[in-house]
Amino acid sequence: SVNPDLGSERQTASFGVEKLTALLDGGAEQTRIRRAVVEAIESDPVFSRENQYFQTQNERYEAAVRKAVHLQKKMHEMGWTENGPEYKYIYRALSGDVAFLLHRVFMRSISVLGSDKQIAKWIPLATQHKLIGSYAQTELGHGTYLQGLETTAVFDTATQEFILNTPKISAMKWWPGDMGRSATHTVVFAQLYVHGKCYGIHPFIVQIRSLQDHSLCPGVTAGDIGPKMNFEHIDNGYLLLKNVRIPRENMLSKFCEVRPDGTYVRQGSQKINYFTMTTVRISLISDEVLTPLMKACTIAIRYSVVRRQSKLKPGEQEAKILDYQTQQEKLLPQLAAAYAFHFINDYLQELFNRGYREIQRKNFDMLPELHALSSGFKAVITQHCTAGVEICLRACGGHGYSLLSGLPSLYTKILASCIYEGENTILLLQTARFLIKCFMAASAGQPVPPSVTYLAAVKHGKCPAKNKLDFLSPDIYTEAYQHVALRLTSSTAAKLQDLIQSGVKKHDAWNQCTVQLVQAAKAHCHYIAVKNFAETVEKLETKAGIQKIMKHLCDLFALHGIFSNTGAFLHDGYTSAAQMDMVTASYLDLLAVIRKDAVPLVDAFDFTDKSLNSALGSYDGHVYQRLYEWAQKSPTNQMSPAYERYLKPLLHNTLSKL
Amino acid sequence: SVNPDLGSERQTASFGVEKLTALLDGGAEQTRIRRAVVEAIESDPVFSRENQYFQTQNERYEAAVRKAVHLQKKMHEMGWTENGPEYKYIYRALSGDVAFLLHRVFMRSISVLGSDKQIAKWIPLATQHKLIGSYAQTELGHGTYLQGLETTAVFDTATQEFILNTPKISAMKWWPGDMGRSATHTVVFAQLYVHGKCYGIHPFIVQIRSLQDHSLCPGVTAGDIGPKMNFEHIDNGYLLLKNVRIPRENMLSKFCEVRPDGTYVRQGSQKINYFTMTTVRISLISDEVLTPLMKACTIAIRYSVVRRQSKLKPGEQEAKILDYQTQQEKLLPQLAAAYAFHFINDYLQELFNRGYREIQRKNFDMLPELHALSSGFKAVITQHCTAGVEICLRACGGHGYSLLSGLPSLYTKILASCIYEGENTILLLQTARFLIKCFMAASAGQPVPPSVTYLAAVKHGKCPAKNKLDFLSPDIYTEAYQHVALRLTSSTAAKLQDLIQSGVKKHDAWNQCTVQLVQAAKAHCHYIAVKNFAETVEKLETKAGIQKIMKHLCDLFALHGIFSNTGAFLHDGYTSAAQMDMVTASYLDLLAVIRKDAVPLVDAFDFTDKSLNSALGSYDGHVYQRLYEWAQKSPTNQMSPAYERYLKPLLHNTLSKL
Repeated sequence: SVNPDLGSERQTASFGVEKLTALLDGGAEQTRIRRAVVEAIESDPVFSRENQYFQTQNERYEAAVRKAVHLQKKMHEMGWTENGPEYKYIYRALSGDVAFLLHRVFMRSISVLGSDKQIAKWIPLATQHKLIGSYAQTELGHGTYLQGLETTAVFDTATQEFILNTPKISAMKWWPGDMGRSATHTVVFAQLYVHGKCYGIHPFIVQIRSLQDHSLCPGVTAGDIGPKMNFEHIDNGYLLLKNVRIPRENMLSKFCEVRPDGTYVRQGSQKINYFTMTTVRISLISDEVLTPLMKACTIAIRYSVVRRQSKLKPGEQEAKILDYQTQQEKLLPQLAAAYAFHFINDYLQELFNRGYREIQRKNFDMLPELHALSSGFKAVITQHCTAGVEICLRACGGHGYSLLSGLPSLYTKILASCIYEGENTILLLQTARFLIKCFMAASAGQPVPPSVTYLAAVKHGKCPAKNKLDFLSPDIYTEAYQHVALRLTSSTAAKLQDLIQSGVKKHDAWNQCTVQLVQAAKAHCHYIAVKNFAETVEKLETKAGIQKIMKHLCDLFALHGIFSNTGAFLHDGYTSAAQMDMVTASYLDLLAVIRKDAVPLVDAFDFTDKSLNSALGSYDGHVYQRLYEWAQKSPTNQMSPAYERYLKPLLHNTLSKL
Repeated sequence: SVNPDLGSERQTASFGVEKLTALLDGGAEQTRIRRAVVEAIESDPVFSRENQYFQTQNERYEAAVRKAVHLQKKMHEMGWTENGPEYKYIYRALSGDVAFLLHRVFMRSISVLGSDKQIAKWIPLATQHKLIGSYAQTELGHGTYLQGLETTAVFDTATQEFILNTPKISAMKWWPGDMGRSATHTVVFAQLYVHGKCYGIHPFIVQIRSLQDHSLCPGVTAGDIGPKMNFEHIDNGYLLLKNVRIPRENMLSKFCEVRPDGTYVRQGSQKINYFTMTTVRISLISDEVLTPLMKACTIAIRYSVVRRQSKLKPGEQEAKILDYQTQQEKLLPQLAAAYAFHFINDYLQELFNRGYREIQRKNFDMLPELHALSSGFKAVITQHCTAGVEICLRACGGHGYSLLSGLPSLYTKILASCIYEGENTILLLQTARFLIKCFMAASAGQPVPPSVTYLAAVKHGKCPAKNKLDFLSPDIYTEAYQHVALRLTSSTAAKLQDLIQSGVKKHDAWNQCTVQLVQAAKAHCHYIAVKNFAETVEKLETKAGIQKIMKHLCDLFALHGIFSNTGAFLHDGYTSAAQMDMVTASYLDLLAVIRKDAVPLVDAFDFTDKSLNSALGSYDGHVYQRLYEWAQKSPTNQMSPAYERYLKPLLHNTLSKL
């Protein structure tokens, strides 16, 4: 039985929920496959996450290892393969709660950076789990700036070995997943030295634990880096190397090789390498960023139609909190963003596939644009979605703060995405560098990549909107976004040039512009996201009300962005104050429109109760029962020694009855 | 030995750090007393928080109970009393990591709501810890809206008892601290029924656990609500009551009494009651909100001068990350906000003290203003400081994400302050209601309270600033803030009236304006905060560079607010685009100025290493050593059964040497 306060929300859906789910999945067949995977995983008790919120870090780690081992069997049993259509749904179905994710990165780095011979040796061993791999790049003192890594690999011609050392505490490898307790091998990034000369950072395969008894190898000190805000299930590790010797053949040598006599040979193009980071940044968006935001929206919106608080109208029943404008203003823009970013993810995937095909034809022309877009969107989407999950959490009040709501762990996990795979500010500055470069090129009449051709067209027009309905026209708002993105890039480029012309050194001038450069990069991505959403909507089928509701969400996404950042649009008078009041009016109107479909819009994400793992977000909406039943199972409801030890002596003198 | 990268920052302080500490404490004598308390607490191993990040929820609870019991002894031993000057520093010195905080709320509610006879009976018992009290107001289904509480207390004339029930699952008491496992008594808020008539919410003292063996009393079901985002040390509880009978004398009856025959008598003024919430909201600002932000700033800023990453200038050493403009833009506004809110806290305390004196003279005139300011500032400060702590965390990258940085628990704890003691959006709407009321009164020529007299003076001027230095004039920016606050209140009042005049019902019209009402309330508080900071700076002594550096921080606080919210200032043309560019220029200049004093400015907060409990924030700045040493002690570095159970069988076929 469904809570009637939730059930009634579903009866008035303006569109076909199943149709929308299929659209999100990329077709009804994909939906079918995904559901089959979810069903297989969720019906298997080994993969249960039921006790997750009660477990210690050690218990989480053990469960993740157990699941990873069991997953091998499960895949075999189900006939799923790494190249099959089911594979991409497994991780989502497990909610990422599984070990050995770095084993895959270990394998990928060998495939990409290793010679054919190395691939032939290591990949089968890894595939059959005859070793457990990790990937050791980040150091205690060094993250983003790879050139600064301090670990060294010195070639010893006499023994034909590399001698690896982490010479200072800041050189210690720190953070690699699966390395703290599980891994037997890892790819170590180190400064290569031959005959006293440094050749920069190179990757080396290093065995760190015995394959017989799992003890640490000679010269290796390794362990777990301890408690984190989330990822309790992962044994992020540290690694100290003291004169650890590995054979010459263990340097991954697709691009560079050290010959037996110490000759250093560079071969092939490393540009593809550059492409790998792009791949990783795009691939994390879906599972690590969009899914958590979609889950958070599902939980918060379902809860907001079940929770009643205070009265909207005197004499009536207490109102559903989603009927309050302020609650709509918190949650519905997050819902719109989830859809907007889902579609931009499709766009990036497509761009990426096209880029990949070109690269295979040795055409690297698309790389700079791909790098700029993947960096910028990684930053913008992770930032936006992290803020969105936090808003969902806070919008559920005290119950959102309970781990049993599922929201705290969604938040603490997604937060990490702002930091890993390139810290967001640094990524935005890379996008900005691309924008400035393209702006200069465009100004000089040179050709620029498709996503930035707008930088060539400096316009001084005004927004033509005459009433609030005009702001529901994608042309109107897309143009406004474009105008802002162009203005921010061009004004920052001008500031940069002025500073340099006034004698400030180039790097100082750049630093003095970085706050504004970050703004420009964000505005660029926001513009592309709005434009892409509008174009996507235009192409949708009009059946089953899908296009109509997506149009509303697109409008909301666009107008929320303007409403939250009015200064950027007002600055040079492109939008007038009167027009801004129209934006506000249209924006607030839209909230009331979308509120009616809010529950069907989250139902379309198609999360099972098990995957939400939330007392607030279940499909049937029986929030209070679930919170109570679940709380009773908490280890904090077992006997505590605190009474005998502390409370009894404290209360010793009390009257038995007051 | 201090890390030279940190040490050098202290040598160039432009002001006397010790002087500033004394200013923050309210005098050198206060500093002395505070340090003595901190020293006494921190040198006592029972109060250690060293293992906190490694402990389970159960371990945290037991430690907190042990500390609470030990604190009684300690206070006796040290000669500290609840009325002594040391008392207010104890909680800060313990970093709140102690049980029985609700016991104090239990006592206060009896003092405020109980008759003289009840006070005489219960307060000595509570003072001597012959019982442990809690405070049970919030229910599973009911928070802010007290009238909606569902717990009932029916008077039985025959037995002269109240019969208490939580008739539905949503009526279950949920969240009360100390109630899950410790409390023997609690104050229950319930709907009073006499002879079938409901008299609304009243407080009742209810015994829930035996004083002999701590077992639950008949009809009582209680336990712990399970894991939360923080507050692991507190046993937040649930409570079900089934026909629990308590004597007539247990209804707290200072204001209302039920006579033996069932006659309901109301006596005295309940206005003071209203004042209690105000007290709580103001009192939480310092310990629960400002201290965490100050700690987060200390940790992040010290780390940012020790961490080096990438190169600012080619050929040079990697740069301190605080030398990057983007890092300054993240952290320094948080530092400025910490000072701004410290001074507004002083202002609120003073206003509160004045209000309290008036109330004791039966003059309740100040109550509406006090309520509006305490509600608004509770919301604005908790929101701003929570966001600030999150920014500090993210600004420390991966190391900020480790629990050992101290930042995650500062964040997860401060986040709760946005929810408890009045959810922020609801509080802001209360402030807004006051603003609209005062605006209408002022428009009609009626007198209004001092903090809102500006609402009477509708001005249509323009900002007079001519160059970027003009924006370092407090008159200029304070006036701009005032203008915005007035505009937002007056335009929302106008929208409200228009809607009502066009036939929309009053409550619907209000709901349709709430997003904008929240903006108006925030703008009002922001204006008061800027004005108060500027006035405070003016009164400071000029010695030891204190006034000068505080002036810089005040400017930064004000300009950051404009820079982050340009639309509000540009909207009606009060500030022009050219002036906004001046604001930006002055703002970015200030970052570079304050960056020089950043470390001394956090040193002045005077946190000990033990109170920060952070591997990143220690006074000596040896970040990497501390992370490594600490990680080695983590329980995740003990032997795990995962190897024998899962890894060994997985790796069974492996060659012993690859």
